[in-house]
Amino acid sequence: MNIGILGTGSVGRALAAGLSAAGHEVQIGTRDPWVTLARTDPDRFGNPAFSTWTTAHEQVGLVTFAEAAAAGDIVVNATSGDVSMQALQAAGADNLRGKILIDVSNPLDFSTGFPPTLFVKDTDSLGEQIQRAFPETRVVKTLNTLNAGLMLAPERLSAPSAVFLSGDDDEAKGQVAELLASFGWQQIVDLGGIATSRGVEMLMPMWLSLLSVHGDPQFNWAIVT
Amino acid sequence: MNIGILGTGSVGRALAAGLSAAGHEVQIGTRDPWVTLARTDPDRFGNPAFSTWTTAHEQVGLVTFAEAAAAGDIVVNATSGDVSMQALQAAGADNLRGKILIDVSNPLDFSTGFPPTLFVKDTDSLGEQIQRAFPETRVVKTLNTLNAGLMLAPERLSAPSAVFLSGDDDEAKGQVAELLASFGWQQIVDLGGIATSRGVEMLMPMWLSLLSVHGDPQFNWAIVT
Repeated sequence: MNIGILGTGSVGRALAAGLSAAGHEVQIGTRDPWVTLARTDPDRFGNPAFSTWTTAHEQVGLVTFAEAAAAGDIVVNATSGDVSMQALQAAGADNLRGKILIDVSNPLDFSTGFPPTLFVKDTDSLGEQIQRAFPETRVVKTLNTLNAGLMLAPERLSAPSAVFLSGDDDEAKGQVAELLASFGWQQIVDLGGIATSRGVEMLMPMWLSLLSVHGDPQFNWAIVT
Repeated sequence: MNIGILGTGSVGRALAAGLSAAGHEVQIGTRDPWVTLARTDPDRFGNPAFSTWTTAHEQVGLVTFAEAAAAGDIVVNATSGDVSMQALQAAGADNLRGKILIDVSNPLDFSTGFPPTLFVKDTDSLGEQIQRAFPETRVVKTLNTLNAGLMLAPERLSAPSAVFLSGDDDEAKGQVAELLASFGWQQIVDLGGIATSRGVEMLMPMWLSLLSVHGDPQFNWAIVT
């Protein structure tokens, strides 16, 4: 499958590496590929420069947001939540029309430092904002509740754990569930419409507390019945 | 142990029944015991009248909020979040001084119907509000992340699952952890200070989505590493 990933941070890289290794054709989109490649310093989250990563992942193309969206049968929003809307606007409604957009973002506000707060919550969500802004795109919120390194590698944990799907289009959720299942996910929970993004986005403060308890991000939720 | 429980709803009843059956001396506090006993209709959440419940639990006393707080070595806030502060003020700072207050409440706002929103979140929490209002009481937030029927009966689920502790007093959290362990809880996660109440209170929208998926409230979170 052709997959366009928006965002060159740790989430975009992990998804690109995993999807590419699984045989998908992957393009990563960024605002300006030359600027991204010219950087040598770590990004604001401490990830090594993209130019370092790309030498080990030459099968993944680096293109503009619009080119990545145009190339993808499925498009993934792996940008930081505070710039997601700008990145998607740069990707372009035409390039996203009719497509599945997997939204992995979280509405984190780092303006008052760490821990971040949420710039939208409870009565609305970033998933819903994106769906409203791109009504002809089929937004499926998922994978925003766990560390990038686990997103396509659930077997790294000691027991099965859960991923969640939120979206208004059942067929789109079905396709995303299939893609997730191909990476070994077993507990794939369809929460309902895109408004259920509120719940998964509001898990973030708890996730940050658990990160602090565990000391590393190798953990995930599971639902026990 | 003498335990005073504030609140006659499903949470207060489940905790009172479980603690009493385990040999603790339990008093349930309400605003006006005679008014509570005189009711014959279900409450606003559909629970049967307290007078029906109490005939099957005669060992549990029904007293005022202040009497329940005074009687308890440990006091439990099992009131609905929107009236918790009033109930605790009626219980009285003098009766709560120096004691552990187990706060099981959630800041649910039903004013716009179902699903409820949260009247405090993200940059503050009900747990913190209560701790600030009663600085000489040792508030431990816990058990607010699962159904009342599971709170003292983790074995009702098919596998071990998690409860969380938030509070500024480590010794108080240790005592509450012991009490929870006595009911069979194995994954008791100390999240940190009372500010971590934000995270557990913000799980509620997700819990409500999962309730809708599962169709019944017999489920809980677990953390997989």
